[in-house]
This record gives sequence, C-alpha cells and structure tokens, in this order.
Amino acid sequence: MTLNEIGRQAKEVSRLLGILGSREKNMGLEEAARSLLEGEEEILLANQEDCEKAKNSGMSQGLLDRLMLTPARVQAMADGLLQVAALEDPVGEVLSVKLRPNGLQIGQKRVPLGVIGMIYEARPNVTADAFGLCFKSGNAVILKGGSDAIRSNQAIVRCLREGLVHAGLPADAVQLVEDTNRDTTRELMRLNQYVDVLIPRGGAGLIRAVVENSTVPVIETGTGNCHIYVDESADFNMALDIIYNAKTQRIGVCNACESLVVHRAIAERFLPLLKRKLKDKQVEIRADEAACAIEPSFTPAAEEDWGTEYLDYILSLKLVDSLDEAIAHINHYNTGHSEAIVTSDYFNAQRFLNEVDAAAVYVNASTRFTDGEEFGFGAEIGISTQKLHARGPMGLKELTTTKYIIYGDGQIR
Amino acid sequence: MTLNEIGRQAKEVSRLLGILGSREKNMGLEEAARSLLEGEEEILLANQEDCEKAKNSGMSQGLLDRLMLTPARVQAMADGLLQVAALEDPVGEVLSVKLRPNGLQIGQKRVPLGVIGMIYEARPNVTADAFGLCFKSGNAVILKGGSDAIRSNQAIVRCLREGLVHAGLPADAVQLVEDTNRDTTRELMRLNQYVDVLIPRGGAGLIRAVVENSTVPVIETGTGNCHIYVDESADFNMALDIIYNAKTQRIGVCNACESLVVHRAIAERFLPLLKRKLKDKQVEIRADEAACAIEPSFTPAAEEDWGTEYLDYILSLKLVDSLDEAIAHINHYNTGHSEAIVTSDYFNAQRFLNEVDAAAVYVNASTRFTDGEEFGFGAEIGISTQKLHARGPMGLKELTTTKYIIYGDGQIR
Repeated sequence: MTLNEIGRQAKEVSRLLGILGSREKNMGLEEAARSLLEGEEEILLANQEDCEKAKNSGMSQGLLDRLMLTPARVQAMADGLLQVAALEDPVGEVLSVKLRPNGLQIGQKRVPLGVIGMIYEARPNVTADAFGLCFKSGNAVILKGGSDAIRSNQAIVRCLREGLVHAGLPADAVQLVEDTNRDTTRELMRLNQYVDVLIPRGGAGLIRAVVENSTVPVIETGTGNCHIYVDESADFNMALDIIYNAKTQRIGVCNACESLVVHRAIAERFLPLLKRKLKDKQVEIRADEAACAIEPSFTPAAEEDWGTEYLDYILSLKLVDSLDEAIAHINHYNTGHSEAIVTSDYFNAQRFLNEVDAAAVYVNASTRFTDGEEFGFGAEIGISTQKLHARGPMGLKELTTTKYIIYGDGQIR
Repeated sequence: MTLNEIGRQAKEVSRLLGILGSREKNMGLEEAARSLLEGEEEILLANQEDCEKAKNSGMSQGLLDRLMLTPARVQAMADGLLQVAALEDPVGEVLSVKLRPNGLQIGQKRVPLGVIGMIYEARPNVTADAFGLCFKSGNAVILKGGSDAIRSNQAIVRCLREGLVHAGLPADAVQLVEDTNRDTTRELMRLNQYVDVLIPRGGAGLIRAVVENSTVPVIETGTGNCHIYVDESADFNMALDIIYNAKTQRIGVCNACESLVVHRAIAERFLPLLKRKLKDKQVEIRADEAACAIEPSFTPAAEEDWGTEYLDYILSLKLVDSLDEAIAHINHYNTGHSEAIVTSDYFNAQRFLNEVDAAAVYVNASTRFTDGEEFGFGAEIGISTQKLHARGPMGLKELTTTKYIIYGDGQIR
C-alpha cells in the first residue's frame, strides 16, 4: 500500500472516529488489549527476530534493552490500553457558549485533531501506547517506527487491528508504515493533505530531522537540558536531595538534571557537600574555573558543556553572582523543558517562576516530576518543549483541537 | 542590521515584555497611537512614494486600494491601538492549580509566546495592527511586509518605536525587516533560535510558501472555500438571505461563500428563486449538470470549480441526494474555514455541526461572521485554518502559550 493510500484511509476513518462515543472507544481499547495478550507469542517471536538482527549488526546494550519485549512488557502494553480506557474522554466538551448581541450562540467545542503521524525509534511499546492515546482522543494514527523494530511493530499492530475489528470498529484507526526507508519518512513529513500533526519521539537527531523537513505541523518533544539553580538562601540538605534525585534516579530521561547553577556566596560551603553527596554514584562534575578553584577534583568545563544533555552520570556546574545571572544563563542554554530553583527567598522564587522560559519551572522540587503520570494526566504521548499548541507533558487533551459551533436563526451581516 | 541581530534583539526584549504589567503595555500602546497621529504627514508622504512606484510598475487597482493610506486610515490605525489597549490582558492568568498527592502544587499559567514573526503583503495597516496585538500579549514582533509597502512600513514602524520610547519602553518590541529580498524572507522562516512562531497573512501563494519553507512553527491563516448547504427542510427565504449576504456583502474576504450545495428534492423550486435573488449582483453560478438542466442559464462547472476560492461574484453549485453526500462533498473540498447549513431539521443540524470539519460550522447563519470582532474578541491577527494551537479567529489569547509553575517543599521522586 502506498503512503498516499494509508493517508487517505486514515483521513476517512478519522471522520468516523471523531463522532464515536467513549463507550465504543473504550470497547475498542479493551479488545485491543485482549488481542495483544492473545498474540503474545507471535509478538515475542517477532521481537526475538528483531533483537537477533540488531545484535548481529552491533546495536548497543542500552538500545537493545529498549527494543526487547518480554511477557511482562506485553502485559504492560495491554494494561496501558486499559488505563487509557479508564481516562476521561476529552472529546465533545463545549468549553464555552457565548450569546452575541445579534442572537448568535457561539460555542467552542473540543474535537479530535484528525490524523496523527508518529515517527519514533526502536521502542516497540510506543506502538501500543501511541495507538491508545490517539484512539481514545478520537484520532486515526499512522505509525512510523524504526526499522530495527519493524517485525515487532508489525505483530503489535496486527493484534491491535484485530482487536478493533472484534469490537466492530475500523482497523484503519491504526496503520503502520511498513516501508522503513528514509524517502517514505520524508514523504510522510509532507503529507499535508491527510496528516494533521506529526509527533516525533526519540533522540535529538530524529526530532531535528522532522522539524527541518516537515511541512505538516510538528509538535516538538524531547530534549531536556534541565538546570537546578541553588540560590544563596537554599536549604542545603533540600538542595542536595533534589540534585541527587534529579541527576541519578534515572539518567537516560529528558527530565533528568544536566546542569547546576550555584550562587557564588555559598560555593565554598556547598561544593564539598555536593561532591560528597554525588560520590556513591560517581557523578562527574564539569565546572567553571571558579568552582574548580574551590574543588580541584572537578573537571574543567568546556563551552559546549553548558548546552549538553548528557543523559549520563555527568553534571555541568557554573557559579553566578546573582539571580539575574542565573536566569540569563538558564534562558540562554536551556531547551525549554524543566528548570528548578532551590531557595528560601520568596522574591527569588517568584522571579524564577516568572522569568525562566521553560515548559515547567519548579521551586524546591526535582525536575523529574515533569511527566504525564506525575502531573495527573494518567498517560502522556510525549513532552512538548515548544510553545505552540501544547507545552509540557501531553495527555489526551493535547491530542484535540477545537471548533466553533454557531447556532443561528437567520443572522446575516 | 542582520536578521540574526534582529532576532537576538527581539528575543532579548521579549524577556522584558513577558513580565510587563498591563498598565505599562497600555501606556506603550497609547503613546504609539499618539505618535502615529503626530507622524501622519511623514507616513502619508512615504505611502505616496510607495503608491506612485506601484502604479508605475502596473499594480492592479484592487491592490493599490489596499496599499493606499489616507488620513482616515492613519486615524483608524491609531484607534485600533487604543482599542487593543482597552482589551483584557490574557497574560498571567493561572488557568488551574492542582494539588498532587505528594504535596506539589502544579499550576498552568498563561504566558506570551515570545517572538512572533509576521510575513505579509502590501497592506501597511497590518503593520500597526499586528504590533498592537503582539505587544499587548507581551510578545516582541518582527515584521516582514511586502516590498511594495516598504516606505510606508518604515514610516509606521518609526512612529511606533518612537511612541514606545516615549513611554519608557524598548523600541525593539517592534522591528521591521527592511531588506525585502526573498533570501531574507527564507532566512526568517528558519530562524528557530529566536522566533517562536510565524504568522503569514496574505494570498494563498504567500501562505503556501511559508508553510513549505519554514522550520519555525507556522500558524496557517487564510484561504476560505466556504460552503452553504441548503437542506431539504430549509426555510427558502432564510437560505436566500444568507446566501446573498455570504456571497455579496464583501467578495474579497476569506469568510465569503464560494460554493453552494443544494438538496436535489428542492432544486426545482429553489434554483429559480436563487437565480432571481442573485441577479442584481450579477453573480455567475457554475453548476453541475443536474442543476444546469433545471436552470440552463447557469454555467457548467468544471472539476476545479469545487476547490476554487473565487473572491469574486461567482458561486459554484452542486446538487446532492442526501445530507451524507453534502457533508462528504464539503469535507473533501473545503479549506477548513467556515461552513453553513440552512435547515429546519434538528437532527440534520446536529449532524452537520458534528461531522463537518472546519474552524467554524454554522446552522442558519451567514459564514461572514467568522471574524474576531464578530466573535467578541475585540480584534484579530488572522483566522487560523489549521488545527494546531489555534483554530478560527485569533485574538490576544491565541498569541499566548502556557507554562507549568510548580511549588514544592523539597519533593523528590
């Protein structure tokens, strides 16, 4: 099937999905979950083939871990669909109705986006997760996963589609682009006629490629060069706990802390404590000259350190003379994800919240909370680091748009 | 000044604008309005030069009308700024605060987008209007108008900047790209480092070029192939009045009606009345075969008529056998702008509202109401025909985004 046909079918099915009630959509999700569990063996076999091929071609252990499915992971995918079924359906809510002086009633109603394109890498669980969220929010989804996971994705999508058919719903609510060559991906990025939005999920390279090449509107997700600023008035123990958590609880995630900014007035007392706190995780600290003068065991930072998302046991560290300098530094180098201040000062907390430009700005808490579950959305399709449409964790509501519905009785201008 | 410098300055100034209170912003708007009136002579002289040059190079009368400024039009620009000053400031509103089980308070706050790039054609009034809305919503704006209006735009922007300086505010809140060659425009479309969103305003060609070439997120505005469906149960007089209004009240606008869809069961009675109603405006009707058989004076429609935004005294007309066929036709050919049904049937009205995919869907009213003023927004920067971020008329609120502000007392994961 050509990409154009996939697009046309998705658009056609999206008309139907847009007017389905929650009861039917939830039945579809439940049948899809059941079908995933019934197809476990087929999915695991397909995944085994993917993994062997990836191993032979030298995939790193970290990526192999992401690619590999187990019975528990298949169960988790099915559970994920049931969790989405339990979430409130955002579609159909009328946000407001205004009566205009001429008698027109103008309402704004939440409706699905239509057709969502997902472009992602070799994590086959994204296949089921993305389907669940897109389907519950009334959208058709076109999935384009990485070539390394193609057999796994084929097996998962086959199960999802069987589940839908069982529930009397159209299989084409979820379609997989099986042709994994780059030209097809580029074509998908320019399928404006049928695709309403593209959501890339994966590394910085993938996301940049989608932003660079798409004519379809893109929601940029992902990279997080997250800072923690330790203010002059910070409670040291709180700061150390937050830094330890944000850096080391999980290093490969976009809301992990990558860079510290510390007020110079407390540096002599704070840096030795910091060094001791991070010792058991062997975190390397790449610091500016002034910090290295206080703690010679720190590695001297290079300019590129300030802009680097390490996703590793590494932290950059910069001393500043003022909150102004801290905010300017963070606004210059951050990626618009999550930024935190540790402070006891009311005015500094307020200024940081107001002036730091990011999706999530924290006072006295770990940046690791930027997450759909933690924010209470139940599930998320990604974390938007751009400003248009959605910013921060994206749940079901962020997969909708609105339309104006206007009730008249013959009004003309 | 290079575009890069313009971008850097805009980003820098946007930090300040984002935390200005309404009082200061309103003072800036008032001073800018006063400065426009003081500079009237300079603006009119510059505009005269633009108009002469345009006339010599053969610009059409319609475009010349749009380019030409008069004392009344300068007054209207100044009044527009004062109107925007009177509108409620959307910035700073906290949409919700949720207390999470771990004690985190997660609020979602409305904040400016940052830096907005406007790309438009030869209507110098857009220069002042766009500045007013962007400034009131706390955004810095980079204006790139058409080369035909360059002298007018320079004079207007000079006045606006002088007004801001008078109010003690940074002139760089509004900057004009004076270099009007295409390479510079393309560069602006890829200035992701500094520009948060691009809003193109103008003809279909301009908008397509921006969508095709931008890596900066774009809000697509504009083209409207708007339909009116006359249902079997329509009140004929109401239908005729609505069609007459939507087609002829102003032909060059995006919310004018371009195409009719009429139920076959009423065609024999309705088409002669339609022909008579539109006679005094000499509206040409390009109809399908079945309609031409009823009214031989209609012009036979070609396939491309169904997708054409005429912006002229022309209407396409198609007969259908059912509401389903009407909806399918409209969803296939519309541009996502404004669509209307004229009906007395409750169920048909509901189905049309639910199933037609457009920014604004009307029952028994003219499509001409899709407009920021008519919707009660006070002013608009354009009408979005896409689904991401904003759909329909865009007022001040649509020029903002949100950020999550999180209050903790030491929470870690």
